[in-house]
Amino acid sequence: MDTDVLRDILEKVKEGRVAVDEGMALLKSHFYLDVGCAKIDTHREWRVGYPEVIFCSGKTVEQVKAIVKAMLEREANILATRASEDLFEEIRKICPAAVYSSLARAFTIKRKALEVSSGYIALVTAGTSDLPVAEEAAVTAELFGNRVERIVDVGVAGIHRLFYNLEAIRGARVVIVVAGMEGALPSVVGGLVDKPVIAVPTSVGYGASFNGLSALLAMLNSCASGVCVVNIDNGYGAGYLAGMINRL
Amino acid sequence: MDTDVLRDILEKVKEGRVAVDEGMALLKSHFYLDVGCAKIDTHREWRVGYPEVIFCSGKTVEQVKAIVKAMLEREANILATRASEDLFEEIRKICPAAVYSSLARAFTIKRKALEVSSGYIALVTAGTSDLPVAEEAAVTAELFGNRVERIVDVGVAGIHRLFYNLEAIRGARVVIVVAGMEGALPSVVGGLVDKPVIAVPTSVGYGASFNGLSALLAMLNSCASGVCVVNIDNGYGAGYLAGMINRL
Amino acid sequence: MDTDVLRDILEKVKEGRVAVDEGMALLKSHFYLDVGCAKIDTHREWRVGYPEVIFCSGKTVEQVKAIVKAMLEREANILATRASEDLFEEIRKICPAAVYSSLARAFTIKRKALEVSSGYIALVTAGTSDLPVAEEAAVTAELFGNRVERIVDVGVAGIHRLFYNLEAIRGARVVIVVAGMEGALPSVVGGLVDKPVIAVPTSVGYGASFNGLSALLAMLNSCASGVCVVNIDNGYGAGYLAGMINRL
Amino acid sequence: MDTDVLRDILEKVKEGRVAVDEGMALLKSHFYLDVGCAKIDTHREWRVGYPEVIFCSGKTVEQVKAIVKAMLEREANILATRASEDLFEEIRKICPAAVYSSLARAFTIKRKALEVSSGYIALVTAGTSDLPVAEEAAVTAELFGNRVERIVDVGVAGIHRLFYNLEAIRGARVVIVVAGMEGALPSVVGGLVDKPVIAVPTSVGYGASFNGLSALLAMLNSCASGVCVVNIDNGYGAGYLAGMINRL
Amino acid sequence: MDTDVLRDILEKVKEGRVAVDEGMALLKSHFYLDVGCAKIDTHREWRVGYPEVIFCSGKTVEQVKAIVKAMLEREANILATRASEDLFEEIRKICPAAVYSSLARAFTIKRKALEVSSGYIALVTAGTSDLPVAEEAAVTAELFGNRVERIVDVGVAGIHRLFYNLEAIRGARVVIVVAGMEGALPSVVGGLVDKPVIAVPTSVGYGASFNGLSALLAMLNSCASGVCVVNIDNGYGAGYLAGMINRL
Amino acid sequence: MDTDVLRDILEKVKEGRVAVDEGMALLKSHFYLDVGCAKIDTHREWRVGYPEVIFCSGKTVEQVKAIVKAMLEREANILATRASEDLFEEIRKICPAAVYSSLARAFTIKRKALEVSSGYIALVTAGTSDLPVAEEAAVTAELFGNRVERIVDVGVAGIHRLFYNLEAIRGARVVIVVAGMEGALPSVVGGLVDKPVIAVPTSVGYGASFNGLSALLAMLNSCASGVCVVNIDNGYGAGYLAGMINRL
Amino acid sequence: MDTDVLRDILEKVKEGRVAVDEGMALLKSHFYLDVGCAKIDTHREWRVGYPEVIFCSGKTVEQVKAIVKAMLEREANILATRASEDLFEEIRKICPAAVYSSLARAFTIKRKALEVSSGYIALVTAGTSDLPVAEEAAVTAELFGNRVERIVDVGVAGIHRLFYNLEAIRGARVVIVVAGMEGALPSVVGGLVDKPVIAVPTSVGYGASFNGLSALLAMLNSCASGVCVVNIDNGYGAGYLAGMINRL
Amino acid sequence: MDTDVLRDILEKVKEGRVAVDEGMALLKSHFYLDVGCAKIDTHREWRVGYPEVIFCSGKTVEQVKAIVKAMLEREANILATRASEDLFEEIRKICPAAVYSSLARAFTIKRKALEVSSGYIALVTAGTSDLPVAEEAAVTAELFGNRVERIVDVGVAGIHRLFYNLEAIRGARVVIVVAGMEGALPSVVGGLVDKPVIAVPTSVGYGASFNGLSALLAMLNSCASGVCVVNIDNGYGAGYLAGMINRL
Repeated sequence: MDTDVLRDILEKVKEGRVAVDEGMALLKSHFYLDVGCAKIDTHREWRVGYPEVIFCSGKTVEQVKAIVKAMLEREANILATRASEDLFEEIRKICPAAVYSSLARAFTIKRKALEVSSGYIALVTAGTSDLPVAEEAAVTAELFGNRVERIVDVGVAGIHRLFYNLEAIRGARVVIVVAGMEGALPSVVGGLVDKPVIAVPTSVGYGASFNGLSALLAMLNSCASGVCVVNIDNGYGAGYLAGMINRL
Repeated sequence: MDTDVLRDILEKVKEGRVAVDEGMALLKSHFYLDVGCAKIDTHREWRVGYPEVIFCSGKTVEQVKAIVKAMLEREANILATRASEDLFEEIRKICPAAVYSSLARAFTIKRKALEVSSGYIALVTAGTSDLPVAEEAAVTAELFGNRVERIVDVGVAGIHRLFYNLEAIRGARVVIVVAGMEGALPSVVGGLVDKPVIAVPTSVGYGASFNGLSALLAMLNSCASGVCVVNIDNGYGAGYLAGMINRL
Repeated sequence: MDTDVLRDILEKVKEGRVAVDEGMALLKSHFYLDVGCAKIDTHREWRVGYPEVIFCSGKTVEQVKAIVKAMLEREANILATRASEDLFEEIRKICPAAVYSSLARAFTIKRKALEVSSGYIALVTAGTSDLPVAEEAAVTAELFGNRVERIVDVGVAGIHRLFYNLEAIRGARVVIVVAGMEGALPSVVGGLVDKPVIAVPTSVGYGASFNGLSALLAMLNSCASGVCVVNIDNGYGAGYLAGMINRL
Repeated sequence: MDTDVLRDILEKVKEGRVAVDEGMALLKSHFYLDVGCAKIDTHREWRVGYPEVIFCSGKTVEQVKAIVKAMLEREANILATRASEDLFEEIRKICPAAVYSSLARAFTIKRKALEVSSGYIALVTAGTSDLPVAEEAAVTAELFGNRVERIVDVGVAGIHRLFYNLEAIRGARVVIVVAGMEGALPSVVGGLVDKPVIAVPTSVGYGASFNGLSALLAMLNSCASGVCVVNIDNGYGAGYLAGMINRL
Repeated sequence: MDTDVLRDILEKVKEGRVAVDEGMALLKSHFYLDVGCAKIDTHREWRVGYPEVIFCSGKTVEQVKAIVKAMLEREANILATRASEDLFEEIRKICPAAVYSSLARAFTIKRKALEVSSGYIALVTAGTSDLPVAEEAAVTAELFGNRVERIVDVGVAGIHRLFYNLEAIRGARVVIVVAGMEGALPSVVGGLVDKPVIAVPTSVGYGASFNGLSALLAMLNSCASGVCVVNIDNGYGAGYLAGMINRL
Repeated sequence: MDTDVLRDILEKVKEGRVAVDEGMALLKSHFYLDVGCAKIDTHREWRVGYPEVIFCSGKTVEQVKAIVKAMLEREANILATRASEDLFEEIRKICPAAVYSSLARAFTIKRKALEVSSGYIALVTAGTSDLPVAEEAAVTAELFGNRVERIVDVGVAGIHRLFYNLEAIRGARVVIVVAGMEGALPSVVGGLVDKPVIAVPTSVGYGASFNGLSALLAMLNSCASGVCVVNIDNGYGAGYLAGMINRL
Repeated sequence: MDTDVLRDILEKVKEGRVAVDEGMALLKSHFYLDVGCAKIDTHREWRVGYPEVIFCSGKTVEQVKAIVKAMLEREANILATRASEDLFEEIRKICPAAVYSSLARAFTIKRKALEVSSGYIALVTAGTSDLPVAEEAAVTAELFGNRVERIVDVGVAGIHRLFYNLEAIRGARVVIVVAGMEGALPSVVGGLVDKPVIAVPTSVGYGASFNGLSALLAMLNSCASGVCVVNIDNGYGAGYLAGMINRL
Repeated sequence: MDTDVLRDILEKVKEGRVAVDEGMALLKSHFYLDVGCAKIDTHREWRVGYPEVIFCSGKTVEQVKAIVKAMLEREANILATRASEDLFEEIRKICPAAVYSSLARAFTIKRKALEVSSGYIALVTAGTSDLPVAEEAAVTAELFGNRVERIVDVGVAGIHRLFYNLEAIRGARVVIVVAGMEGALPSVVGGLVDKPVIAVPTSVGYGASFNGLSALLAMLNSCASGVCVVNIDNGYGAGYLAGMINRL
């Protein structure tokens, strides 16, 4: 796929160190693990720096178990999101080391320690009801070796709460802001810090919030610069991206 | 229509001071002025306190002229919104006293002075591009005898601009907040004042602002209490309502 | 945050009556109460005139209990909306004085009596199915010391019912109109009274009502002046705003 | 297509009065007129009672001319909607008897007189800006032999205007109500008359009217019984249907 | 409300046959029945020809019972739509004569016989899944004295089924067409008959049918003339309107 | 309906071999089977090449049973989609030969063997969660005599998985691509093969996927040529169409 | 990219016939032509069977000219869609052989003759206004060597027009159906033929057609099997796909 | 606003070095520049690291001139986006050093040199029509001292073009991907690199692209990790954020 690998194969084949058919097989075996219902992207860690993550929603218990089992044969840390408590109980049977966060609805299996980042991610939430999404972000970022500072319930209706926590936010290398309803907090934070702001709209709200659409649109239209947006309730995506930026 | 009038007619007819047919005609003549293409609601001032306003959009020049002419035969002040400069030039020919605001795209004809309110309306705009909508609100409120204090360009991306103008906002009896894009300003203001906040979404923005939909949804979902919303770009509606509250 | 407080601190520090660090702490302690999962905005009553309200939807029982407990240590009245009967049973255990309205799905804890307003709020509903939203508005307004006059089931399909109750509506200082389906009632009322009209769209209806979107759009596009809108099913917001206007 | 014709052909063929191939040709020639860019549905008048109507929008001048020419070879009355003045000038060259209504943006060519209906259609408009759509309905209904009574500018913001014209509305066999913005008028009318109400939403309005969507949804959700809806700005459709009902 | 009544009162009061206060009371008592949670529109039958109908969705059992009880004191037939079987069991306890249609989810209480119409309504459904909505229309129309001819499962995917039932459709005075998914059937029927077609979109379908939106839009955009539309799944509305037209 | 049949009837009637009334009956009996709640399109296999398929969603158990029973009297293979396991248990009682696929939520009754196609359909899925929709396509295509090659879990986030399976895809006569979330896979596949690509959006995803709308729009806007789209989650439609193309 | 090429390079490099760097360059040069503002996909014809097509919308005249010039250095036929007449005039200056279709707004440059297919594509349009989209499909399909049979203006409002042209449609190997407004025609055609139907929604219509959304949704929800959909107004996409199927 | 400044003022006032009123004025003067129609956020550079940017859309020429003039009195670099060529001509009169990019529709005034970053931003576009949005991003990032590497026209329909440019993309510290239509490119890129990917949807496309909505939704639903999204056509936002990350 990528020219480095291409060149490497060419070199080896040219020097006769590797036969043509062997070269073909070699390439394939490095790239994914076929478990029938899924092709686990084992090449991913080498390619983008982190192992594949299991999105449990829409998968049967048997499917998730098959994937976890296959991944356990390798050394990478394992993260599974949108996992019900029932599903976790099944997983714990095959891997007692698995740890569940009921707030984040995620489980992790830590196989190797990552060096913790020196810089940290500020994780800001507008309200108490946004905590599950925020915690999914925290679990994700922490598993990938990031330090996370949580600043809870500082939404714009009582904006002084934000100002009294500004120092902690400004000290971070990257900021995640989680908010539902009118989704105004990322704009205010974006206007006050000189770091990237990752905005996460949540489906918290009712009526014309249309399950997070209102917050999503508001964040996309932020008049503050340096703000980007991920999908509604996508704590995982925000945690992953923040970790990537934090470790640059 | 309303029971007071009903009773009054009953009394007069009972006493024989008014014949039945005459009573019928009497009622009708007080209620509207038929100019063919429109029925001008002359009864309105008596019923809701203010004269009818001409919404020019979608009306021909001839239609607006006919309505203005008919209204000039009465004493009320006249306000026409969404009026192009060309339309105004035609109106000035039949009424040299008419005054045009090119920013607000509105003209007014002042026929009698109203006592100016002691309290005032704070009119807050998020950005420079929101000024036309804000000015429509100002023209409307001022014609109906309200004092208006303008606070311009204090959007959330540089929120300190708001704080340095907070005193002027807090002194008002009612606040209008005009904003486009993510429409976050009304929530912030609503969390800082103890007065009604009328939020006006504007179509300022692009892409996923969807012509003001983003700001509208944000304002409807405001987490601050005491905030209500009018239609996108509806400066007139906000100015009218604010005036009504200011004069309570 | 606000310049008055800023100046006050400056004065006291200048006169040496307050040390710098002490001044910093002083400011903070007046502003919010940190209970872990939430920062209760205790400064709010001073800032906007009313205590913070608990929006229970999306909060766990433990979180609501923690917030109520913290608020009980102060003297303000407490209002919690979108509260299930089960949640209320838990609250009653820690505060027997709490009162539940099953129609409004809200509970209140009255700690001090407010002087009841002389003027009143007219609360108009289009249909019987709109009553829960209307009652949320009533509970809110009454807790904050307002007199509320209910006018039930006077929707436009039988408009004479409205006219026979017009006197009660016209006597109010501010009118709330609650309607679902086509949301036409606020326009009709707005054309008949000289007071602010707060329109509340409800999710009552089916098919193309799209959970209240139809009523919401209709109210935003009202051809009557003096009408503003709050979020779908947002009885609380309407009751709060009406109370604010009623007590101006 | 329809069994009557089928049977008729069978009978004739059986009796040998018509040959098989001849029967095939016969059927086809009665059914449409092929003018290259269009197949004019000449069978329509026999099938549904009225001749086909030309919807000019999206057709070139040449195409409309070709269709008109072909239709002129028959005796039916001709109606063309959404026709610009420029297009009409071209048509007048080939048919001086054509008449243009600039308000309705439609032209008609009257070839034979229809008996005028004894009952009439009440055509009610909410505002002056709704007149073009209403006039398209009027032109359509009148060409098909219906009497039309126009009641202009009686929208709900000044609802007494409606009541003083109620007698004329109640006397009709069927009522068309044309309204933009919040589209509330058909519900009010529907609650006051015992005749079918055809609601026509117009694109009059701005902001959250979304080009007539608001009025359309309101009308579809009408709480009054006996109300049906046609497409936004579809005066033609309303006029046609009303005529059909009026002549039942 | 209406001028006839107004005049009548004037006459009586003028002649002294009725006192002023008495006249006021008289008017009110004829107009609605107040049962607390609802104002039953008893004036409706006189005004629009049919008694009010109970829309049960969103009402509690107690509320429906109260309304039924009050209506039972008058002679009119009673129709209640969107009624669950459980609700009906409660109603049967207070009125054993009530009859339930589980397909239509409606109950009726027949108090007086209406003369059955000579003409009939053709009720056409595209698929088997559309039957519940169609049956709601049938129950409604039949209670109001109309003859209904059902033509089931003749959707456009096998359009010959329609043609073999065309005679029954063409014989009707008015046609109801019920369809979900792409909602094409009303257009085809509208092109084949010379009677009004009432199109009812249903929420039958999946994916991009968006709960009936697809069928609704298709029907509103019908290229056939003489077609009008009611709300998604609104069998009641279609049956009521069809009955009104059938009895013209 | 179609001219061949028309001509055939004409010939026979002309020759006196068939009487007129007999001819009418003949036509009808070939066209559909009336089972009360449904008109089974038995003519369909002759007309479009395949028997009618039972879409179980929205039908009662009794209705599905009636349809299956009627179809069992003919020889065609039977396919029923969107069938719950409970429904299948009822069907198995009347037809023990019925086979259920729990992944596809469909049952089949094989009455006669079809010659299996020489060419095959490549069935590509982006993720494990898309398998149910894909399997519905597979069951459909296989019942109609097509060979299906499944390529599972090759979504764009690890695009090398696709490239290592490209040979299998390129060998097919037609390709089905099933994907949720951003729906990008059909575009990538469409740019790599010279065969028709049928894209099936699934409702897999969350937040702004809006139940498959995101994938649907992406597929409709594919920049690759040779891509067409079916409804969200419509595995049946894709399998049917692919089979039709495969057997051309 | 594809393993065949990979293997070929490996073979050649292994045998020393090609040096490693040379192999890299070789691959690249076969794959695209870089003209600065664009990378022309010259590899496409080899990969998917047809040359790349120029979509002119959003490109400057200079950009289109640069692309055409580069493509002229190769032998493939050239197709450019959404090209204004002005743009074409500029192209004709550099390539007098270019041919413009004003109806389809496309130009073609024929460089080599393709064998014309024996089977043909039936191209069916609902109305005259759909012709431009249909013609874009025809131009595309014909340039790629397909025979196209046009059946114009046979929409469902006069469905007999369709039946009298059914033979021509049934004789095709694949059918394109172009329709706006309610988009019902593909469902009807799909129920009558045993060939793949490609549905093309057009933006023809007004009001609630929402620029083709209505027709698009209807086609996606078609109850007929064997129907797939392309983007609104995407005649090119339909023509390309139909040609691909026709030549299978 | 921020506690550092607060403390500083407290210290100075305590020590008597600054009077109370003087302290108040001091604060204000550092915070913004009032030019009547706008409050230029001069504090911004100190607060978030970059000067305020002028969004010209919706501002009059006079307003932009006033803002530029005021900013010229300071030393910061000036960037103005969405500027027409006409507007730029006016600006050049007051500042000949201004430079216009017609592709990006932006002008810049460089007042001081920034050290250019060692790392670089990869700026990837799917098609030629996406260039204007991409160039707005490039102009923004370059003005703020970033090196930008452009990779043009590598959309997924010819995905080999992407692979042959992968090295340049992988070498960057952060990647911007600009795409319209189905917006699939960011997902593919996100699966291939270990750096943050900023996705920019463009309004390029037609029909169901709905002015960029399709690309926006696709990007928000990306199955690749490490992808975030900015507003439709918001090249500026992407360039600004990328620069911020690049310089971390």
